[in-house]
Amino acid sequence: MKTGRIFHNGKVVEVTEENTKVKLPSGQLIEENQAHWLPPVEPGTVFALGLNYADHAAELAFKAPEKPLAFLKGPNTITGHRAQTRRPADVSYMHYECELAVIIGKTGKHISREDAYDYVAGYTIANDYAFRDYLENYYRPNLRVKNRDNCTPLGPWFTPASDISDPMNLSLSTSIDGEVIQRGSTKDMVFDIPALIVYLSEFMTLNPGDIILTGTPTGIADTPVGSVINTEIEGLGQLVSNIVDDKTWYASN
Amino acid sequence: MKTGRIFHNGKVVEVTEENTKVKLPSGQLIEENQAHWLPPVEPGTVFALGLNYADHAAELAFKAPEKPLAFLKGPNTITGHRAQTRRPADVSYMHYECELAVIIGKTGKHISREDAYDYVAGYTIANDYAFRDYLENYYRPNLRVKNRDNCTPLGPWFTPASDISDPMNLSLSTSIDGEVIQRGSTKDMVFDIPALIVYLSEFMTLNPGDIILTGTPTGIADTPVGSVINTEIEGLGQLVSNIVDDKTWYASN
Repeated sequence: MKTGRIFHNGKVVEVTEENTKVKLPSGQLIEENQAHWLPPVEPGTVFALGLNYADHAAELAFKAPEKPLAFLKGPNTITGHRAQTRRPADVSYMHYECELAVIIGKTGKHISREDAYDYVAGYTIANDYAFRDYLENYYRPNLRVKNRDNCTPLGPWFTPASDISDPMNLSLSTSIDGEVIQRGSTKDMVFDIPALIVYLSEFMTLNPGDIILTGTPTGIADTPVGSVINTEIEGLGQLVSNIVDDKTWYASN
Repeated sequence: MKTGRIFHNGKVVEVTEENTKVKLPSGQLIEENQAHWLPPVEPGTVFALGLNYADHAAELAFKAPEKPLAFLKGPNTITGHRAQTRRPADVSYMHYECELAVIIGKTGKHISREDAYDYVAGYTIANDYAFRDYLENYYRPNLRVKNRDNCTPLGPWFTPASDISDPMNLSLSTSIDGEVIQRGSTKDMVFDIPALIVYLSEFMTLNPGDIILTGTPTGIADTPVGSVINTEIEGLGQLVSNIVDDKTWYASN
């Protein structure tokens, strides 16, 4: 069963999905586009991956890396479904990245490949926006490219691992204002979910709530002010985000 | 007045410094080497800087960067004064980095150079260990180099900004087993404290508890198992850490 968190009548409330609607603890159903969504789990350490789909690396004219290109996201970056992300006036190219987000469920270090899925609580969708003008190095993007406030919507739902029979065979797509631009499948990851868990837990402890954003396939595109970006993953739902200009952003942030 | 946090009789306790001793809220004094130290503040987002001293960049045969080489540290990395840091058996070169840590005191974005120090609550010492065998890129070190568990002791004391007349003119030094190996001054930073605050707050919000580790001067050296590393900054005190082998580490972690 999918679960989520919304801000409702002054409180953070745990909700569930029922027939595309949002079910409150009272049993009341509301439309998903009427909810004030929060990330579906309280995020711990958030890892992101660069160039983890060979087709995306090729699109950027790079070879796929030999080791996972993992980096950290600050807590300031994380926001929820239907939130706003700012497109700064000085940026000429800002792109979405539809990514399968793996949520860790228990503490582990030196996790073996065989045991890796035992450490996965479930999945959600991430849209890990990048601000390309500031890119100095594809292999390790800097904070201006990947660490702006609210640049990484997560959600809407947490889907438990038991509901997803094969996380390495899910289709992903992204649309801008309803037109599908990006299509891919998690089967094309360079480092699959177990490989990422093995890699990270080899040198640090993973904890419940830690989240691994597993990279994006080919098909990135610029995201203009006013556009509505819909990142979708098979079995997980659709994560919507809205691109706003500086003025709109600073009016409420 | 310097303040700190220790774990004492099952609780986190705020302490102060009195004549090199640790004063408990009850007024009782204990020796600083008898305390179980925690980082002096609850860390928010922790930023670290690569190559922020020109002499250190030269030591590594690099030019000083044109923009701050900022990256994030995960919460798993942070530990306290007198804690243990693991030297993994597969690492042939692991070095300390004595760094002035700047603790942010209030929320800000787009902070001007003139106002930057208004956002500084105070200072502490960081030792941001690096595991050089895994370095692929000096300009953006990867997580195996900079994000291992307990690889960044902080402390012992929080020193309020008002106690430090010129944070850009403090001597730093590091000793291994009592022998001083690294000497420098914060005046040799490539990007000074206001420049770092301006840079970061230009694209993201800084919040109270956020910490900027401002980089290390020349004079790095390997840190063998069993060695005691003492990083010292003028006016802030001495931060001690202990290098242990895998077996010792895993016995308690």
